[in-house]
Amino acid sequence: MTPLFDLLSHARVFDLAQPYFTGMPHHPSHPPFLFSLTKQHGEYVGPQGNSSASEAFALGGHVGTHIDALCHFSSGGRLHGGEDAVALQSYAAGLGRLSIDTLAPILRRGVLLDIARLHGGALPEDFEIAPGHLEGAARAQGVEIRPGDVVLLRTGWAAFWDDPARFIRQVRGPGPALAGARWLGDRGVFAAGSDTVAFEKVPDASMPVHVHLLVEKGIHIVECLNLEELARASVYEFLFIAAPLKIRGATASPIRPLALA
Amino acid sequence: MTPLFDLLSHARVFDLAQPYFTGMPHHPSHPPFLFSLTKQHGEYVGPQGNSSASEAFALGGHVGTHIDALCHFSSGGRLHGGEDAVALQSYAAGLGRLSIDTLAPILRRGVLLDIARLHGGALPEDFEIAPGHLEGAARAQGVEIRPGDVVLLRTGWAAFWDDPARFIRQVRGPGPALAGARWLGDRGVFAAGSDTVAFEKVPDASMPVHVHLLVEKGIHIVECLNLEELARASVYEFLFIAAPLKIRGATASPIRPLALA
Amino acid sequence: MTPLFDLLSHARVFDLAQPYFTGMPHHPSHPPFLFSLTKQHGEYVGPQGNSSASEAFALGGHVGTHIDALCHFSSGGRLHGGEDAVALQSYAAGLGRLSIDTLAPILRRGVLLDIARLHGGALPEDFEIAPGHLEGAARAQGVEIRPGDVVLLRTGWAAFWDDPARFIRQVRGPGPALAGARWLGDRGVFAAGSDTVAFEKVPDASMPVHVHLLVEKGIHIVECLNLEELARASVYEFLFIAAPLKIRGATASPIRPLALA
Amino acid sequence: MTPLFDLLSHARVFDLAQPYFTGMPHHPSHPPFLFSLTKQHGEYVGPQGNSSASEAFALGGHVGTHIDALCHFSSGGRLHGGEDAVALQSYAAGLGRLSIDTLAPILRRGVLLDIARLHGGALPEDFEIAPGHLEGAARAQGVEIRPGDVVLLRTGWAAFWDDPARFIRQVRGPGPALAGARWLGDRGVFAAGSDTVAFEKVPDASMPVHVHLLVEKGIHIVECLNLEELARASVYEFLFIAAPLKIRGATASPIRPLALA
Repeated sequence: MTPLFDLLSHARVFDLAQPYFTGMPHHPSHPPFLFSLTKQHGEYVGPQGNSSASEAFALGGHVGTHIDALCHFSSGGRLHGGEDAVALQSYAAGLGRLSIDTLAPILRRGVLLDIARLHGGALPEDFEIAPGHLEGAARAQGVEIRPGDVVLLRTGWAAFWDDPARFIRQVRGPGPALAGARWLGDRGVFAAGSDTVAFEKVPDASMPVHVHLLVEKGIHIVECLNLEELARASVYEFLFIAAPLKIRGATASPIRPLALA
Repeated sequence: MTPLFDLLSHARVFDLAQPYFTGMPHHPSHPPFLFSLTKQHGEYVGPQGNSSASEAFALGGHVGTHIDALCHFSSGGRLHGGEDAVALQSYAAGLGRLSIDTLAPILRRGVLLDIARLHGGALPEDFEIAPGHLEGAARAQGVEIRPGDVVLLRTGWAAFWDDPARFIRQVRGPGPALAGARWLGDRGVFAAGSDTVAFEKVPDASMPVHVHLLVEKGIHIVECLNLEELARASVYEFLFIAAPLKIRGATASPIRPLALA
Repeated sequence: MTPLFDLLSHARVFDLAQPYFTGMPHHPSHPPFLFSLTKQHGEYVGPQGNSSASEAFALGGHVGTHIDALCHFSSGGRLHGGEDAVALQSYAAGLGRLSIDTLAPILRRGVLLDIARLHGGALPEDFEIAPGHLEGAARAQGVEIRPGDVVLLRTGWAAFWDDPARFIRQVRGPGPALAGARWLGDRGVFAAGSDTVAFEKVPDASMPVHVHLLVEKGIHIVECLNLEELARASVYEFLFIAAPLKIRGATASPIRPLALA
Repeated sequence: MTPLFDLLSHARVFDLAQPYFTGMPHHPSHPPFLFSLTKQHGEYVGPQGNSSASEAFALGGHVGTHIDALCHFSSGGRLHGGEDAVALQSYAAGLGRLSIDTLAPILRRGVLLDIARLHGGALPEDFEIAPGHLEGAARAQGVEIRPGDVVLLRTGWAAFWDDPARFIRQVRGPGPALAGARWLGDRGVFAAGSDTVAFEKVPDASMPVHVHLLVEKGIHIVECLNLEELARASVYEFLFIAAPLKIRGATASPIRPLALA
């Protein structure tokens, strides 16, 4: 443990998560974040003058910085691997296969592809991230993608998080289309993510990137990341750490991912 | 990054979190976990036969494996550092100081003190963990506590997680009382935790351990851990990693802590 | 009270509400219904062998049979009466004017206009209910609309409630457009409702019926009614009773409306 | 309908419900009320300048003015009627018998027994409502209890609703004990209620009033009523109207009960 601990104590730690707060952005098809300090200091005062406060909250599994389980999407009624999605699901128990609680903690090589820097600023709403952009960013940054990596695409939209209407933009926004997803899939990455509400050029009712990555390739998707600090530090290669909550049967989990460099 | 990555790729990773599921244990004063797969595969089928499922859930901030913010408790109306707890709180925004979103990701030396092993099995309901037990376990295991550590006490109660009535036990259970909390506080630890619903011998309406650690000493508390695998492997010293969700104003956050050895 | 009580004891009571259950229909922009029996019989057994069970649930204010407060919509930034909608709203307190808790219990003359019967069955997805249909149904049924009435339009879609995908139909469905809303508004009704998820021919991004009724005319809207039993009994005129929950600041409330005849 | 309508248009309508708001009182074993205006005016502006706001909320089934289903309690593992409580319950579906959705809308004779007036003010915390008080109030008011009635006991605690710590009082408060419950049960009432968080002198871990009324007698319980206005008007006999939401499998429902006189 000593070398581990010594090394880490010298590592720079980048926090890749967005905060949770009432009114935070949420994709309209996912339930919003509710929060209330339901128990308050001073409400009940104990024998030595002690008191406590606590909250309750509610949210959709895909609200805030989160990672998708493979069971989030199906194609032709089939999950990744071919099992029948409908047969495996129930309201109370969620999905019986490939749910987020089956995902081990992630400690993997991470790569940032800063498409916004390449473009010269936050990507416009209708920007499709094509293979050429991915290759261009990798070349400009001097990094390569390897099998098992977690690859994060920066669009610059994390900066809009505190302006939910702009961040969600009626679910219009930049991202890869099928060609970009295939480029990532061909490289055998473990997960791909971005700083947008959907890792997909939206709107596109057929959601080809989600289908290709989750269903066809078994590659996880991370959304609503904050990649600003990492980009400012020009850190393109790092140790990516994230530990999804083991919510049985869930199709996603909130995470607070870290990049260590 | 290379040495970091190489070292970690050889590390053993222990998952210290309990799963979330409908019916999971919760302290009666914290709202239970609700879950439902509110969107289902096959409900909406897109142009290429794609479909998706997703969930919503609700819970109290202290439900499941979680870490307490310092603002969770007050004493004589004061938070850690002396500010007025009531003046800093609101239903909508939670606590304006010392809330969980102000806590940086935790990457620290961790120590397991296996009190259950010392005792010869899961601790009985009315067992008070005294300084002698803490010292005895440290000596038996050959570990020392250092300032800044995260110290985890194993009672063996994690094994009862799937039997919520037994785990909660009408909120009766083993843990340290004030003397044990002082022993930890005197060593300047960063956080202390256990595999029980309360890091405290309960019931005790004055909650002296919470008051001493959170309010007087500024030491975080972690509860509902699963320390069984770590104990079975006799891993007593490790790298503890946990990243609380940045829920603004909250008094706690769910975490999935990891021990790397 | 005696005459009241005697008369009511001979009244036929029609239940106009749909049930709540996990997986029930919900408009995609409103959070779904979550339910869990969070405390169970046998979990805690009291001294005389007593035990109890209870649930928690979560939902959007416009999920299930509900009535809209006037503050639900604004036009040009103004609520009904002209006040600034944005200035009157907050995440925690909702709307400071015209919210559902300011609505007195409703005991009014109700009228059913059975458009589905006139049409010869459940209305097709793209059916616009025009003034001619409203007049035709009133004439065929021998009823007139009076100021202060609650007027309910039957499309026949209540029968699809147990098939949420069909009921929601990707938010496509029959209803009045602006001309129909004006016909109702001109008659000075108190509220208008239907058995669909939106009292409006949808989709129509400008939502002219909601704007006309709620904002311009101050007329409440009731949605997701079940009018099947009333229609089968050919009861077109009745006493309408509904008592919205006094949720402070809310834009709607669940109700279980009754028709007494 | 005409006589019904004419009579009701002359009736005085008393609202017996308390409001819902963040921070409202809740029994600590029932999850608190969460509310947030999750969609806001101005966030999405439609083609004609229209915009809308809406909320989401969460709560326990026994929070706020509510009526208990018979399945809420069991005794010796049995529900009212003798069926096995545990066998009939599940997390997702609640109780399979005697749940609140099976309760027809209530339009019955109501009687107020104003124990607080008899006592000369709000009842003290440890006041047991005995048969003598019930008889004394009925005599003083000149009313009799008949089979099928809804009988409401006023303690005066409704006035504390806006001070949740006082209203909940660490779940100590006035109410009937077993003798009072038997007095009501012997008269064959349909439901009994009060303006307190529990229709029971609390604390009493064996909850004899709930067991006697719900399990042994099949009599519903109404809690958290506001009886102040009714008492001020000295209305002791009235038409009681309440329509519980049809939440499948639930052990209770919020209601806004009305008294018509």
